[in-house]
Amino acid sequence: MLQSEQGCVQFFFQHDPQVSAFCSLKAALRFFRPAFDILTGCARVFVMLIVHVHVHVKPESVEAFKQASVANARESVKEPGIAQFDVLQQQDDPTRFVLVEAYRSVEATAAHKETKHYQVWRDAVAPMMAEPRSSVKFTNAF
Amino acid sequence: MLQSEQGCVQFFFQHDPQVSAFCSLKAALRFFRPAFDILTGCARVFVMLIVHVHVHVKPESVEAFKQASVANARESVKEPGIAQFDVLQQQDDPTRFVLVEAYRSVEATAAHKETKHYQVWRDAVAPMMAEPRSSVKFTNAF
Repeated sequence: MLQSEQGCVQFFFQHDPQVSAFCSLKAALRFFRPAFDILTGCARVFVMLIVHVHVHVKPESVEAFKQASVANARESVKEPGIAQFDVLQQQDDPTRFVLVEAYRSVEATAAHKETKHYQVWRDAVAPMMAEPRSSVKFTNAF
Repeated sequence: MLQSEQGCVQFFFQHDPQVSAFCSLKAALRFFRPAFDILTGCARVFVMLIVHVHVHVKPESVEAFKQASVANARESVKEPGIAQFDVLQQQDDPTRFVLVEAYRSVEATAAHKETKHYQVWRDAVAPMMAEPRSSVKFTNAF
């Protein structure tokens, strides 16, 4: 541990636990860089399950679907088990969307389906589908 | 600015610019949280173009492709025009990947293709393809 880092830890230990933790991490970083790289990698790996939901809506339902989906997404990103929830509209065919849903665990996918905002969205968009939705599950390599 | 943060900034200003910057950011965050929330919200609106690149690799190239793509992604996220660059592996078919690339502008897509890391990746993965790559462009509604 370098002198300045020792001082950092000692000086802030009694002053601010958050800064103390930061300094400890920084000191550890210099000496355990490979381990840190794995840890920061793990921050991404903690997102265990990404689901792409492919949606094809009726032409007359494009705006209503978008509005309902954005409302659902706004609430979904507040769920602790959800890391990302995007509503993407295909540029060359505005009737096609992909919902990009990143869950921190498999359990979080079940929890999402129990929420009121999901259920409201599901029922609202049911008559808007041009064909049944399909989904593909991924693991994030990065 | 809280006393501990003042101390933090003062103590480290001469010791470690990185820690000083961290403390300044922390203090600023506490006092300008509403503005920060708006700014981070805007960061999403600035993402104008999302590209999903669908990749099908030869079974024997799965690990090599993953390694090359993660290396490319690590560099790509450093580009100022790139907001997100994910490498996703399909769970029910590990030979299939989707690269999720979020660009802040159309120009950023061209800039990405000029980078060395992209060109190295492109050449490295060329012989790994089981079929030609395809891409779909989206606009983010959320």
